[in-house]
Amino acid sequence: MTFAAQILTLYPEMFPGPLGHSIAGRALGEGKWSCDAIQIRDFATDKHKSVDDTPSGGGAGMVMRADVLARAVDAAIERQPDAPVLAMTPRGEPLTQALVRELVAGPGVTILCGRFEGIDERLFEGRPIRPVSIGDYVLSGGEAGALVVLDACIRLLPEVMGAPKSGDEESFENGLLEYPHYTRPNDWEGRTIPEVLRSGDHAKIAAWRKQKADDDTRLRRPDLWERHNGARDRPASGARREKKD
Amino acid sequence: MTFAAQILTLYPEMFPGPLGHSIAGRALGEGKWSCDAIQIRDFATDKHKSVDDTPSGGGAGMVMRADVLARAVDAAIERQPDAPVLAMTPRGEPLTQALVRELVAGPGVTILCGRFEGIDERLFEGRPIRPVSIGDYVLSGGEAGALVVLDACIRLLPEVMGAPKSGDEESFENGLLEYPHYTRPNDWEGRTIPEVLRSGDHAKIAAWRKQKADDDTRLRRPDLWERHNGARDRPASGARREKKD
Repeated sequence: MTFAAQILTLYPEMFPGPLGHSIAGRALGEGKWSCDAIQIRDFATDKHKSVDDTPSGGGAGMVMRADVLARAVDAAIERQPDAPVLAMTPRGEPLTQALVRELVAGPGVTILCGRFEGIDERLFEGRPIRPVSIGDYVLSGGEAGALVVLDACIRLLPEVMGAPKSGDEESFENGLLEYPHYTRPNDWEGRTIPEVLRSGDHAKIAAWRKQKADDDTRLRRPDLWERHNGARDRPASGARREKKD
Repeated sequence: MTFAAQILTLYPEMFPGPLGHSIAGRALGEGKWSCDAIQIRDFATDKHKSVDDTPSGGGAGMVMRADVLARAVDAAIERQPDAPVLAMTPRGEPLTQALVRELVAGPGVTILCGRFEGIDERLFEGRPIRPVSIGDYVLSGGEAGALVVLDACIRLLPEVMGAPKSGDEESFENGLLEYPHYTRPNDWEGRTIPEVLRSGDHAKIAAWRKQKADDDTRLRRPDLWERHNGARDRPASGARREKKD
Protein backbone atom coordinates (compact mmCIF):
# COMPACT_ATOMS: atom_id res chain seq x y z
CA MET A 1 0.00 0.00 0.00
CA THR A 2 1.21 3.47 -0.82
CA PHE A 3 1.28 6.16 1.86
CA ALA A 4 -0.14 9.14 -0.03
CA ALA A 5 1.24 12.57 0.87
CA GLN A 6 -0.41 15.72 -0.47
CA ILE A 7 1.23 19.06 0.24
CA LEU A 8 -0.66 22.32 -0.26
CA THR A 9 1.97 24.99 -0.80
CA LEU A 10 2.95 28.13 -2.68
CA TYR A 11 6.27 26.40 -3.44
CA PRO A 12 5.53 22.97 -4.95
CA GLU A 13 9.06 22.97 -6.41
CA MET A 14 10.38 22.35 -2.86
CA PHE A 15 8.94 18.78 -2.94
CA PRO A 16 10.06 16.05 -2.70
CA GLY A 17 13.34 18.03 -2.37
CA PRO A 18 15.51 16.33 0.29
CA LEU A 19 12.97 13.49 0.45
CA GLY A 20 13.95 12.56 -3.11
CA HIS A 21 17.30 11.28 -1.79
CA SER A 22 18.53 8.59 0.62
CA ILE A 23 16.01 6.35 2.42
CA ALA A 24 12.94 8.45 1.56
CA GLY A 25 14.00 8.82 -2.07
CA ARG A 26 14.46 5.08 -2.45
CA ALA A 27 11.04 4.44 -0.87
CA LEU A 28 9.49 7.02 -3.21
CA GLY A 29 11.02 5.25 -6.22
CA GLU A 30 9.66 1.93 -4.95
CA GLY A 31 6.15 3.35 -4.61
CA LYS A 32 6.04 2.96 -0.81
CA TRP A 33 4.86 6.56 -0.61
CA SER A 34 3.70 9.16 -3.12
CA CYS A 35 4.24 12.93 -3.09
CA ASP A 36 1.75 15.34 -4.64
CA ALA A 37 2.64 18.98 -4.20
CA ILE A 38 -0.41 21.13 -4.98
CA GLN A 39 -0.09 24.83 -5.86
CA ILE A 40 -2.42 26.82 -3.58
CA ARG A 41 -2.44 29.70 -6.06
CA ASP A 42 -4.39 27.51 -8.51
CA PHE A 43 -7.39 27.89 -6.18
CA ALA A 44 -7.42 31.70 -6.27
CA THR A 45 -10.36 33.18 -8.17
CA ASP A 46 -9.40 36.77 -8.98
CA LYS A 47 -7.33 37.72 -12.00
CA HIS A 48 -4.27 38.47 -9.83
CA LYS A 49 -4.39 34.94 -8.38
CA SER A 50 -4.12 36.47 -4.91
CA VAL A 51 -3.88 34.11 -1.93
CA ASP A 52 -3.30 36.70 0.82
CA ASP A 53 -4.49 40.06 2.07
CA THR A 54 -3.54 42.58 4.78
CA PRO A 55 -4.22 41.61 8.43
CA SER A 56 -7.51 42.80 9.92
CA GLY A 57 -6.71 45.19 12.74
CA GLY A 58 -3.42 46.23 11.14
CA GLY A 59 0.16 45.05 11.48
CA ALA A 60 3.04 43.99 9.25
CA GLY A 61 2.92 41.31 6.57
CA MET A 62 0.08 39.45 4.92
CA VAL A 63 -2.39 36.77 6.03
CA MET A 64 -3.44 33.76 3.92
CA ARG A 65 -7.11 33.93 2.92
CA ALA A 66 -9.60 31.43 4.36
CA ASP A 67 -11.67 31.26 1.16
CA VAL A 68 -8.77 30.37 -1.13
CA LEU A 69 -7.24 27.89 1.31
CA ALA A 70 -10.62 26.24 1.91
CA ARG A 71 -10.97 25.55 -1.81
CA ALA A 72 -7.50 24.00 -1.89
CA VAL A 73 -8.22 21.91 1.23
CA ASP A 74 -11.59 20.77 -0.16
CA ALA A 75 -9.93 19.58 -3.39
CA ALA A 76 -7.30 17.67 -1.41
CA ILE A 77 -9.96 16.05 0.81
CA GLU A 78 -11.92 15.03 -2.27
CA ARG A 79 -8.82 13.27 -3.64
CA GLN A 80 -7.90 11.62 -0.32
CA PRO A 81 -11.02 11.60 1.87
CA ASP A 82 -9.48 9.38 4.56
CA ALA A 83 -6.19 11.18 5.03
CA PRO A 84 -6.00 13.61 7.99
CA VAL A 85 -5.30 17.25 7.11
CA LEU A 86 -2.53 18.98 9.07
CA ALA A 87 -1.55 22.62 8.88
CA MET A 88 1.99 23.59 9.84
CA THR A 89 1.83 26.57 12.20
CA PRO A 90 3.70 27.63 15.35
CA ARG A 91 0.28 27.86 17.05
CA GLY A 92 -0.30 24.12 16.54
CA GLU A 93 0.06 21.11 18.83
CA PRO A 94 3.69 19.97 19.08
CA LEU A 95 4.66 17.12 16.75
CA THR A 96 5.56 14.04 18.79
CA GLN A 97 6.66 10.53 17.93
CA ALA A 98 3.20 9.35 19.05
CA LEU A 99 1.54 11.62 16.47
CA VAL A 100 3.97 10.33 13.82
CA ARG A 101 2.98 6.73 14.69
CA GLU A 102 -0.68 7.71 14.41
CA LEU A 103 -0.18 9.23 10.94
CA VAL A 104 1.85 6.27 9.66
CA ALA A 105 -0.96 3.90 10.65
CA GLY A 106 -3.28 5.72 8.23
CA PRO A 107 -3.53 5.92 4.42
CA GLY A 108 -1.52 9.12 4.09
CA VAL A 109 -1.53 12.77 5.09
CA THR A 110 -2.45 16.12 3.58
CA ILE A 111 -0.30 19.00 4.81
CA LEU A 112 -1.16 22.67 4.41
CA CYS A 113 1.91 24.92 4.52
CA GLY A 114 1.36 28.40 5.94
CA ARG A 115 3.38 31.37 4.70
CA PHE A 116 3.56 35.10 5.50
CA GLU A 117 2.18 36.07 8.93
CA GLY A 118 -0.16 33.10 9.10
CA ILE A 119 -3.52 31.65 8.09
CA ASP A 120 -6.95 33.23 8.61
CA GLU A 121 -8.10 31.61 11.87
CA ARG A 122 -11.61 30.89 10.54
CA LEU A 123 -10.19 28.20 8.27
CA PHE A 124 -9.55 26.05 11.37
CA GLU A 125 -13.17 26.48 12.47
CA GLY A 126 -14.63 25.75 9.05
CA ARG A 127 -12.57 22.75 8.01
CA PRO A 128 -11.33 19.56 9.79
CA ILE A 129 -7.71 20.66 10.06
CA ARG A 130 -5.23 19.74 12.78
CA PRO A 131 -2.74 22.58 13.39
CA VAL A 132 0.70 21.11 14.13
CA SER A 133 4.02 22.70 15.12
CA ILE A 134 7.42 21.00 14.77
CA GLY A 135 8.96 23.10 17.53
CA ASP A 136 9.09 26.40 19.41
CA TYR A 137 10.76 28.54 16.75
CA VAL A 138 9.57 30.48 13.70
CA LEU A 139 10.23 29.40 10.10
CA SER A 140 9.73 31.27 6.83
CA GLY A 141 6.87 28.91 5.99
CA GLY A 142 5.36 25.51 6.66
CA GLU A 143 7.34 23.73 3.96
CA ALA A 144 10.34 22.78 6.13
CA GLY A 145 7.88 21.50 8.74
CA ALA A 146 6.06 19.40 6.13
CA LEU A 147 9.40 17.85 5.10
CA VAL A 148 10.06 17.00 8.75
CA VAL A 149 6.63 15.39 9.26
CA LEU A 150 7.01 13.33 6.09
CA ASP A 151 10.59 12.26 6.88
CA ALA A 152 9.49 11.08 10.33
CA CYS A 153 6.60 9.13 8.79
CA ILE A 154 8.35 7.59 5.79
CA ARG A 155 11.14 5.92 7.77
CA LEU A 156 8.49 4.04 9.77
CA LEU A 157 6.64 2.67 6.72
CA PRO A 158 6.92 -1.13 6.35
CA GLU A 159 10.20 -2.29 4.78
CA VAL A 160 11.65 1.20 4.41
CA MET A 161 14.41 0.89 7.00
CA GLY A 162 16.92 -1.92 6.59
CA ALA A 163 17.01 -3.42 10.05
CA PRO A 164 14.17 -1.94 12.08
CA LYS A 165 14.92 -1.49 15.73
CA SER A 166 12.46 -2.31 18.43
CA GLY A 167 10.43 0.87 18.83
CA ASP A 168 11.16 0.92 22.54
CA GLU A 169 14.86 1.53 22.05
CA GLU A 170 14.62 4.76 20.06
CA SER A 171 14.50 8.24 21.49
CA PHE A 172 10.99 9.34 22.57
CA GLU A 173 9.32 5.99 21.86
CA ASN A 174 9.20 5.32 25.59
CA GLY A 175 9.33 8.96 26.64
CA LEU A 176 13.11 8.96 27.16
CA LEU A 177 16.17 9.96 25.18
CA GLU A 178 18.07 7.10 23.62
CA TYR A 179 21.26 5.81 25.31
CA PRO A 180 24.61 6.96 23.84
CA HIS A 181 26.26 5.03 21.01
CA TYR A 182 29.83 3.88 20.49
CA THR A 183 31.67 2.09 17.71
CA ARG A 184 35.22 1.22 16.65
CA PRO A 185 37.99 2.29 16.96
CA ASN A 186 38.11 1.27 20.62
CA ASP A 187 40.74 3.90 21.38
CA TRP A 188 40.10 7.28 19.80
CA GLU A 189 42.45 10.06 20.92
CA GLY A 190 42.89 8.28 24.26
CA ARG A 191 39.13 7.92 24.82
CA THR A 192 37.98 4.33 25.03
CA ILE A 193 34.59 2.69 24.63
CA PRO A 194 32.97 1.97 28.04
CA GLU A 195 34.23 -1.43 29.29
CA VAL A 196 30.74 -2.90 29.80
CA LEU A 197 29.87 -2.58 26.10
CA ARG A 198 32.79 -4.86 25.23
CA SER A 199 31.96 -7.40 27.96
CA GLY A 200 29.65 -9.57 25.86
CA ASP A 201 27.30 -9.70 28.87
CA HIS A 202 23.97 -8.83 27.28
CA ALA A 203 22.06 -8.37 30.54
CA LYS A 204 24.72 -6.01 31.88
CA ILE A 205 24.77 -4.08 28.60
CA ALA A 206 20.98 -3.69 28.63
CA ALA A 207 21.06 -2.48 32.25
CA TRP A 208 23.85 0.02 31.48
CA ARG A 209 21.95 1.40 28.50
CA LYS A 210 18.73 1.73 30.48
CA GLN A 211 20.60 3.60 33.23
CA LYS A 212 22.25 5.90 30.69
CA ALA A 213 18.92 6.67 29.00
CA ASP A 214 17.47 7.55 32.42
CA ASP A 215 20.48 9.66 33.47
CA ASP A 216 20.76 11.56 30.20
CA THR A 217 17.03 12.29 30.06
CA ARG A 218 17.06 13.55 33.66
CA LEU A 219 20.09 15.77 33.06
CA ARG A 220 19.40 17.02 29.54
CA ARG A 221 15.63 17.08 29.41
CA PRO A 222 14.12 17.50 32.88
CA ASP A 223 10.79 18.27 31.15
CA LEU A 224 10.70 14.83 29.48
CA TRP A 225 11.88 13.14 32.66
CA GLU A 226 9.12 14.73 34.73
CA ARG A 227 6.46 13.73 32.20
CA HIS A 228 7.87 10.19 31.99
CA ASN A 229 7.71 9.71 35.74
CA GLY A 230 4.37 11.46 36.06
CA ALA A 231 2.87 9.15 33.44
CA ARG A 232 4.28 6.12 35.25
CA ASP A 233 3.16 7.11 38.74
CA ARG A 234 -0.33 8.38 37.95
CA PRO A 235 -3.20 6.20 36.75
CA ALA A 236 -3.88 6.82 33.05
CA SER A 237 -6.50 9.54 32.55
CA GLY A 238 -8.53 7.06 30.51
CA ALA A 239 -8.75 4.75 33.52
CA ARG A 240 -9.87 7.59 35.73
CA ARG A 241 -12.56 8.59 33.29
CA GLU A 242 -13.84 5.03 33.20
CA LYS A 243 -14.47 5.07 36.94
CA LYS A 244 -16.35 8.36 36.78
CA ASP A 245 -18.66 7.54 33.87
CA MET B 1 28.22 40.47 5.73
CA THR B 2 27.49 36.93 4.63
CA PHE B 3 26.13 34.41 7.14
CA ALA B 4 28.22 31.34 6.30
CA ALA B 5 26.54 27.95 6.66
CA GLN B 6 28.58 24.76 6.44
CA ILE B 7 26.74 21.43 6.51
CA LEU B 8 28.60 18.17 7.13
CA THR B 9 26.48 15.44 5.58
CA LEU B 10 26.45 12.18 3.65
CA TYR B 11 23.89 13.81 1.32
CA PRO B 12 25.31 17.15 0.13
CA GLU B 13 22.87 17.02 -2.80
CA MET B 14 20.06 17.82 -0.31
CA PHE B 15 21.42 21.40 0.08
CA PRO B 16 20.36 24.13 -0.43
CA GLY B 17 17.27 22.13 -1.50
CA PRO B 18 14.14 23.96 -0.31
CA LEU B 19 16.35 26.84 0.86
CA GLY B 20 17.16 27.54 -2.79
CA HIS B 21 13.59 28.84 -3.27
CA SER B 22 11.45 31.65 -1.88
CA ILE B 23 12.85 34.02 0.75
CA ALA B 24 15.94 31.93 1.56
CA GLY B 25 16.70 31.33 -2.12
CA ARG B 26 16.51 35.04 -2.90
CA ALA B 27 18.80 35.81 0.05
CA LEU B 28 21.25 33.13 -1.14
CA GLY B 29 21.31 34.70 -4.60
CA GLU B 30 21.97 38.10 -3.05
CA GLY B 31 24.90 36.77 -1.03
CA LYS B 32 23.22 37.36 2.35
CA TRP B 33 24.12 33.81 3.31
CA SER B 34 26.29 31.06 1.79
CA CYS B 35 25.73 27.32 1.80
CA ASP B 36 28.63 24.84 1.73
CA ALA B 37 27.58 21.22 1.92
CA ILE B 38 30.60 19.09 2.78
CA GLN B 39 30.67 15.34 2.08
CA ILE B 40 31.63 13.52 5.30
CA ARG B 41 32.77 10.49 3.28
CA ASP B 42 35.67 12.55 1.89
CA PHE B 43 37.23 12.34 5.37
CA ALA B 44 37.24 8.53 5.55
CA THR B 45 40.68 6.99 5.31
CA ASP B 46 40.17 3.35 4.36
CA LYS B 47 39.72 2.18 0.79
CA HIS B 48 35.98 1.53 1.33
CA LYS B 49 35.49 5.15 2.47
CA SER B 50 33.61 3.82 5.47
CA VAL B 51 32.05 6.35 7.85
CA ASP B 52 30.21 3.93 10.15
CA ASP B 53 30.63 0.66 12.02
CA THR B 54 28.50 -1.71 14.12
CA PRO B 55 27.39 -0.53 17.60
CA SER B 56 29.59 -1.57 20.53
CA GLY B 57 27.53 -3.80 22.77
CA GLY B 58 25.33 -4.98 19.90
CA GLY B 59 22.05 -3.84 18.45
CA ALA B 60 20.53 -2.95 15.09
CA GLY B 61 21.95 -0.43 12.63
CA MET B 62 25.27 1.36 12.39
CA VAL B 63 26.99 4.14 14.35
CA MET B 64 28.93 7.03 12.80
CA ARG B 65 32.64 6.87 13.63
CA ALA B 66 34.20 9.49 15.91
CA ASP B 67 37.52 9.48 14.05
CA VAL B 68 36.05 10.19 10.62
CA LEU B 69 33.59 12.80 11.92
CA ALA B 70 36.33 14.53 13.93
CA ARG B 71 38.40 14.99 10.76
CA ALA B 72 35.38 16.49 8.98
CA VAL B 73 34.60 18.78 11.94
CA ASP B 74 38.25 19.87 12.21
CA ALA B 75 38.30 20.85 8.53
CA ALA B 76 35.08 22.83 8.94
CA ILE B 77 36.43 24.62 12.04
CA GLU B 78 39.62 25.49 10.16
CA ARG B 79 37.53 27.12 7.42
CA GLN B 80 35.19 28.96 9.80
CA PRO B 81 36.93 29.15 13.20
CA ASP B 82 34.37 31.52 14.73
CA ALA B 83 31.18 29.69 13.72
CA PRO B 84 29.60 27.44 16.38
CA VAL B 85 29.35 23.75 15.49
CA LEU B 86 25.96 22.10 16.03
CA ALA B 87 25.11 18.42 15.63
CA MET B 88 21.52 17.48 14.86
CA THR B 89 20.53 14.65 17.21
CA PRO B 90 17.39 13.73 19.17
CA ARG B 91 19.62 13.67 22.29
CA GLY B 92 20.42 17.38 21.89
CA GLU B 93 19.07 20.52 23.57
CA PRO B 94 15.77 21.62 22.01
CA LEU B 95 16.04 24.31 19.35
CA THR B 96 14.34 27.50 20.53
CA GLN B 97 13.81 30.94 19.04
CA ALA B 98 16.35 32.21 21.59
CA LEU B 99 19.02 29.83 20.22
CA VAL B 100 18.12 30.91 16.67
CA ARG B 101 18.63 34.57 17.70
CA GLU B 102 21.99 33.64 19.22
CA LEU B 103 23.14 31.91 16.01
CA VAL B 104 21.99 34.76 13.76
CA ALA B 105 24.06 37.23 15.80
CA GLY B 106 27.21 35.29 14.85
CA PRO B 107 29.20 34.88 11.62
CA GLY B 108 27.53 31.63 10.59
CA VAL B 109 27.03 28.05 11.69
CA THR B 110 28.49 24.62 11.00
CA ILE B 111 25.96 21.79 11.24
CA LEU B 112 26.85 18.11 11.50
CA CYS B 113 24.07 15.83 10.30
CA GLY B 114 23.83 12.45 12.02
CA ARG B 115 22.58 9.38 10.16
CA PHE B 116 22.00 5.71 11.01
CA GLU B 117 21.60 4.95 14.74
CA GLY B 118 23.63 7.97 15.80
CA ILE B 119 27.09 9.41 16.39
CA ASP B 120 29.86 7.90 18.55
CA GLU B 121 29.39 9.74 21.85
CA ARG B 122 33.12 10.39 22.26
CA LEU B 123 32.96 12.95 19.44
CA PHE B 124 30.98 15.27 21.76
CA GLU B 125 33.66 14.95 24.44
CA GLY B 126 36.56 15.49 22.06
CA ARG B 127 35.28 18.41 19.99
CA PRO B 128 33.41 21.67 20.80
CA ILE B 129 30.05 20.54 19.42
CA ARG B 130 26.59 21.60 20.63
CA PRO B 131 24.06 18.77 20.16
CA VAL B 132 20.70 20.23 19.11
CA SER B 133 17.28 18.65 18.53
CA ILE B 134 14.47 20.29 16.54
CA GLY B 135 11.78 18.29 18.39
CA ASP B 136 10.72 15.13 20.18
CA TYR B 137 10.46 12.81 17.17
CA VAL B 138 12.92 10.71 15.16
CA LEU B 139 14.03 11.58 11.61
CA SER B 140 15.97 9.53 9.07
CA GLY B 141 18.93 11.85 9.53
CA GLY B 142 20.01 15.30 10.62
CA GLU B 143 19.55 16.90 7.20
CA ALA B 144 15.89 17.95 7.66
CA GLY B 145 16.88 19.42 11.04
CA ALA B 146 19.73 21.38 9.46
CA LEU B 147 17.29 22.82 6.89
CA VAL B 148 15.00 23.87 9.75
CA VAL B 149 17.82 25.56 11.70
CA LEU B 150 18.99 27.42 8.61
CA ASP B 151 15.47 28.47 7.56
CA ALA B 152 14.84 29.87 11.06
CA CYS B 153 18.15 31.77 10.94
CA ILE B 154 18.02 33.12 7.38
CA ARG B 155 14.68 34.86 7.71
CA LEU B 156 16.11 36.89 10.62
CA LEU B 157 19.19 38.10 8.72
CA PRO B 158 19.16 41.86 8.04
CA GLU B 159 17.01 42.88 5.05
CA VAL B 160 15.86 39.33 4.25
CA MET B 161 12.20 39.77 5.22
CA GLY B 162 10.22 42.51 3.50
CA ALA B 163 8.54 44.20 6.42
CA PRO B 164 10.09 42.90 9.61
CA LYS B 165 7.70 42.66 12.54
CA SER B 166 8.61 43.66 16.02
CA GLY B 167 10.19 40.55 17.48
CA ASP B 168 7.84 40.73 20.43
CA GLU B 169 4.78 40.03 18.33
CA GLU B 170 5.86 36.68 16.89
CA SER B 171 5.24 33.29 18.42
CA PHE B 172 7.83 32.30 21.06
CA GLU B 173 9.69 35.65 21.01
CA ASN B 174 8.07 36.55 24.33
CA GLY B 175 7.40 32.98 25.42
CA LEU B 176 3.81 32.95 24.11
CA LEU B 177 2.01 31.77 20.99
CA GLU B 178 1.09 34.51 18.56
CA TYR B 179 -2.48 35.84 18.48
CA PRO B 180 -4.78 34.57 15.69
CA HIS B 181 -4.88 36.29 12.30
CA TYR B 182 -7.79 37.36 10.11
CA THR B 183 -8.08 38.94 6.70
CA ARG B 184 -10.73 39.69 4.04
CA PRO B 185 -13.34 38.60 3.10
CA ASN B 186 -15.13 39.83 6.22
CA ASP B 187 -17.83 37.21 5.82
CA TRP B 188 -16.59 33.75 4.92
CA GLU B 189 -19.21 31.01 4.98
CA GLY B 190 -21.13 32.98 7.61
CA ARG B 191 -18.08 33.42 9.84
CA THR B 192 -17.12 37.05 10.35
CA ILE B 193 -13.92 38.71 11.48
CA PRO B 194 -14.06 39.66 15.19
CA GLU B 195 -15.69 43.09 15.49
CA VAL B 196 -12.85 44.65 17.48
CA LEU B 197 -10.35 44.13 14.65
CA ARG B 198 -12.49 46.31 12.39
CA SER B 199 -13.01 49.02 15.01
CA GLY B 200 -9.95 51.09 14.12
CA ASP B 201 -9.29 51.45 17.88
CA HIS B 202 -5.62 50.53 18.07
CA ALA B 203 -5.47 50.30 21.86
CA LYS B 204 -8.46 47.97 21.97
CA ILE B 205 -7.01 45.85 19.15
CA ALA B 206 -3.67 45.54 20.96
CA ALA B 207 -5.45 44.54 24.20
CA TRP B 208 -7.59 41.95 22.37
CA ARG B 209 -4.51 40.43 20.69
CA LYS B 210 -2.61 40.29 23.97
CA GLN B 211 -5.58 38.56 25.66
CA LYS B 212 -5.88 36.06 22.77
CA ALA B 213 -2.17 35.26 22.87
CA ASP B 214 -2.48 34.61 26.62
CA ASP B 215 -5.66 32.52 26.28
CA ASP B 216 -4.42 30.41 23.37
CA THR B 217 -1.06 29.74 25.03
CA ARG B 218 -2.76 28.69 28.28
CA LEU B 219 -5.22 26.40 26.46
CA ARG B 220 -2.98 24.93 23.73
CA ARG B 221 0.43 24.95 25.40
CA PRO B 222 0.12 24.77 29.19
CA ASP B 223 3.86 23.94 29.24
CA LEU B 224 4.78 27.29 27.63
CA TRP B 225 2.28 29.13 29.78
CA GLU B 226 3.73 27.72 32.98
CA ARG B 227 7.27 28.59 31.92
CA HIS B 228 6.17 32.09 30.89
CA ASN B 229 4.58 32.80 34.24
CA GLY B 230 7.38 31.15 36.18
CA ALA B 231 9.92 33.35 34.41
CA ARG B 232 7.85 36.44 35.17
CA ASP B 233 7.19 35.68 38.83
CA ARG B 234 10.62 34.44 39.87
CA PRO B 235 13.72 36.64 40.04
CA ALA B 236 16.10 35.79 37.17
CA SER B 237 18.59 33.09 38.16
CA GLY B 238 21.41 35.47 37.20
CA ALA B 239 20.17 37.96 39.78
CA ARG B 240 20.01 35.28 42.45
CA ARG B 241 23.54 34.13 41.70
CA GLU B 242 24.80 37.70 42.08
CA LYS B 243 23.51 37.88 45.65
CA LYS B 244 25.08 34.58 46.63
CA ASP B 245 28.58 35.17 45.21
